[in-house]
Amino acid sequence: MPDKLTLDPAAVPPQNTYKLLIGTVVPRPIAFVSTVSPDGVLNLAPFSFFNVICANPPVVCFTCGVREPVKDTLANVRANREFVVNIVTEEIAGRMNATSGEYHAHIDEFQVSGLTPVASELVRPPAVLESPVNMECKVVQIVDVSLQPLGGSLILGEVVRFHIDRALFDNFRIDPDKLCAIGRMGGNGYTRTRDRFEMIRPKV
Amino acid sequence: MPDKLTLDPAAVPPQNTYKLLIGTVVPRPIAFVSTVSPDGVLNLAPFSFFNVICANPPVVCFTCGVREPVKDTLANVRANREFVVNIVTEEIAGRMNATSGEYHAHIDEFQVSGLTPVASELVRPPAVLESPVNMECKVVQIVDVSLQPLGGSLILGEVVRFHIDRALFDNFRIDPDKLCAIGRMGGNGYTRTRDRFEMIRPKV
Repeated sequence: MPDKLTLDPAAVPPQNTYKLLIGTVVPRPIAFVSTVSPDGVLNLAPFSFFNVICANPPVVCFTCGVREPVKDTLANVRANREFVVNIVTEEIAGRMNATSGEYHAHIDEFQVSGLTPVASELVRPPAVLESPVNMECKVVQIVDVSLQPLGGSLILGEVVRFHIDRALFDNFRIDPDKLCAIGRMGGNGYTRTRDRFEMIRPKV
Repeated sequence: MPDKLTLDPAAVPPQNTYKLLIGTVVPRPIAFVSTVSPDGVLNLAPFSFFNVICANPPVVCFTCGVREPVKDTLANVRANREFVVNIVTEEIAGRMNATSGEYHAHIDEFQVSGLTPVASELVRPPAVLESPVNMECKVVQIVDVSLQPLGGSLILGEVVRFHIDRALFDNFRIDPDKLCAIGRMGGNGYTRTRDRFEMIRPKV
């Protein structure tokens, strides 16, 4: 292909493949995931390999990367199969980032960040009060796609409760100018979602 | 939770749950997916329930929603287990949108949109020349998460070749100002990725 570089991933160090993927699959939505450990420690961490799978029933998924020791979120989700996805806005971006360090398992990232845990209805992990959208989820399936370094486990969760700030909800439509969600780019980059346009799907 | 509306998805029509999910899980990256039917018809369609799963090996995933008749992309991928993901930029946004109508299976969306198919190295579906990043993929697994209306099948594909425009590649870093990727929002909305900021992950 003219002017294109062709790369065989088998010949590229995985760390470079990772850079390439996070720089090209953009912008990525962010799941700010709360979980609870078997001994009751709260955990909160952001994940950008996240998306919707389907609406009937509502199922979302996110990947936990392979780490040594295993990431707290994955250990907690394997143990009790519950999590809450909290949507990240410009307003809580800095506090979300504060939770993204690799803290020991006994550290509660709600305390690190100053965010407020609020009891969920159907799952043990609390929601983030300051996030305008919370989804209480029960694990449907965990797919261990690759257990090598820089591999990952895909966690599928069914949304059993939604909590939505009334200010941005209008008959199931969400006002993006009130939500002010942020998305993940490559490196240390994030994007706002204010610079938008619309396109109408063609009728066939 | 104060000022939040609590919704039980079991009590909400799936179409409304869908609206809620596409309005809140934003911004979503777009996989512009090329496939080939068993009798050789090219297909090209955008999917925004798309993300990276992991880098070692590189695996991406996207959902095909449940439709009657089954979406061409899903039928093709089930038949020959190959696809190409093409990244969508501002420049080709309109042509991508042109492919998003529900065309009959015998219609080649490369012709509908005026985009140029270019031969892949390891898979039968061609790449989109005008897209600056193409990923040749082989199916690893298809997870039929829900086969109800507004359900979906999650397609996991391993990237076996990357093709990247040299102008935006610098030692595996991608320049987002040259890429100009667009992301999907709720309704008919899209976001550009020019309005960015950076945050450094805290060292622990």
